[in-house]
Amino acid sequence: VLAYLNGSFLPRSSATVSVEDRGFIFGDGVYEVWRAVNGRLFQSDRHIARLVHGLGELRIALPDSLHSSRLGPIADRLLGESGLTDGEATLYVEVTRGAAPRTHQFPTNPTAPTVYMTVNSFKPADELRARGAAAITTPDIRWMRCDIKSIQLLPNVLAKQAAVEKGAIDALMIRNGMVTEGSHANFMGVIDGVIRTHPTNHLILPGITRTVVFEIAAGLGIPVVDEAIAEDEIEDLDEAFLTGTTTDVMPIVRVNDRPISNGTPGPITTRLVTEFRAYLDAACGAAHATS
Amino acid sequence: VLAYLNGSFLPRSSATVSVEDRGFIFGDGVYEVWRAVNGRLFQSDRHIARLVHGLGELRIALPDSLHSSRLGPIADRLLGESGLTDGEATLYVEVTRGAAPRTHQFPTNPTAPTVYMTVNSFKPADELRARGAAAITTPDIRWMRCDIKSIQLLPNVLAKQAAVEKGAIDALMIRNGMVTEGSHANFMGVIDGVIRTHPTNHLILPGITRTVVFEIAAGLGIPVVDEAIAEDEIEDLDEAFLTGTTTDVMPIVRVNDRPISNGTPGPITTRLVTEFRAYLDAACGAAHATS
Repeated sequence: VLAYLNGSFLPRSSATVSVEDRGFIFGDGVYEVWRAVNGRLFQSDRHIARLVHGLGELRIALPDSLHSSRLGPIADRLLGESGLTDGEATLYVEVTRGAAPRTHQFPTNPTAPTVYMTVNSFKPADELRARGAAAITTPDIRWMRCDIKSIQLLPNVLAKQAAVEKGAIDALMIRNGMVTEGSHANFMGVIDGVIRTHPTNHLILPGITRTVVFEIAAGLGIPVVDEAIAEDEIEDLDEAFLTGTTTDVMPIVRVNDRPISNGTPGPITTRLVTEFRAYLDAACGAAHATS
Repeated sequence: VLAYLNGSFLPRSSATVSVEDRGFIFGDGVYEVWRAVNGRLFQSDRHIARLVHGLGELRIALPDSLHSSRLGPIADRLLGESGLTDGEATLYVEVTRGAAPRTHQFPTNPTAPTVYMTVNSFKPADELRARGAAAITTPDIRWMRCDIKSIQLLPNVLAKQAAVEKGAIDALMIRNGMVTEGSHANFMGVIDGVIRTHPTNHLILPGITRTVVFEIAAGLGIPVVDEAIAEDEIEDLDEAFLTGTTTDVMPIVRVNDRPISNGTPGPITTRLVTEFRAYLDAACGAAHATS
């Protein structure tokens, strides 16, 4: 698999960063994951916009390679030389404040950000999607800037690991009694035909699949209310699902070993699963055919 | 300057880690900083114990190189070959979950932790200490496991940067109206001859200099109460100071541009500054003379 690192292309297995990289020392950076289908990046401009937002909040200068006109060709080469231009893949991009002598404050000497990109083959979890997945709940112990897609992911790592050990796909994180989101996906519930999900603020990542699902729901006439779901409301949900770049729309049919409704994916969720996949294929399949 | 990385000694400028290291990707690791004076590590066993605690909380197996019997000789070589066996230096140790294909959950294949160690020359800020330093306050936006000395340090980076831009040494972090600690040091205040500081819990790092200061205070008959100081009590403090491995005891004489008491280091703080330095010299100077 190929990687891009600070202007060079090289095998990922040979790609290294300095031990003084502030990503390695402080978690001082942001990242982004794109879905690529048939070599085409899905929702690329929105991913770039979110990365630009995060870099701005961290006051890391936007590297030239992340401008849309440069990122596209880099992604094309990574996908192409890694044999990932047909079917499913992901593009990972990480930007850190660069390598400098260790001081908490920003380096005073000019320091080029570190830019790392790579690609992976990807297999959507469609069998699990058909029957629906389990989730657990766990306290949301993350920092208060979850809107920044930073590499401060240790609490997400611990939450996901706890879920996996329970045979669950993910952990729903609970802050002040309310579900915020999963460890790497947004959470939505359905009550009386209305989709409810946590409002867009500093406590969740503004998911791009979440936004696409909002748009699909609007097109279908399904109302969406941005009001967080309380932990003690979970058992009363008619339906529940996660959304994310590698999650797509994933029905959640059990939470903490209790079924949601009858324990199978509900009709609105199933509709969104189908419509989302169609949207993704329309964006990437069609684009691929004409490129 | 020499570094130690996964069993090898090499120049720090040549030391690199894989882009797939979970320290670089997730901030999935812990670190520790020792003070070294005259080639002797100060409070070494307490630093090791804190590292062992953090690794345990993260469920990272303790690398052999961190056992006291192995860490000492590694530190000796790093300090010796870097010309840092006379006077002031620091030892930095970082351990991550190692390099593995990116998944939030722990790697399922056996993965050796990454162990990185290096040393730096160090100059205590004694001129600033004599006149006292300024601090600012900032919201404490960190995660809820600040007792783990993890490399999730982005909020600390942002807080310290904000302080530096205001000409201050550090930012006092405020959670629910109470001062927790600085970005890399604990905070203590003095009211009516009593030292007050945040209790030892998940909201602060259990500082080793903090513990030493408790012991010194006990020896001097100065009471210590572990009760957090409210932000709105700061202006009423008789004295204030920070404690930390590279901070020692640092008088804080201004907070947000308002003086603490008369704006000069107070008598209890000054006593602790002197006694702490004597304690450090006794531990490291004497040990050096006999080694």
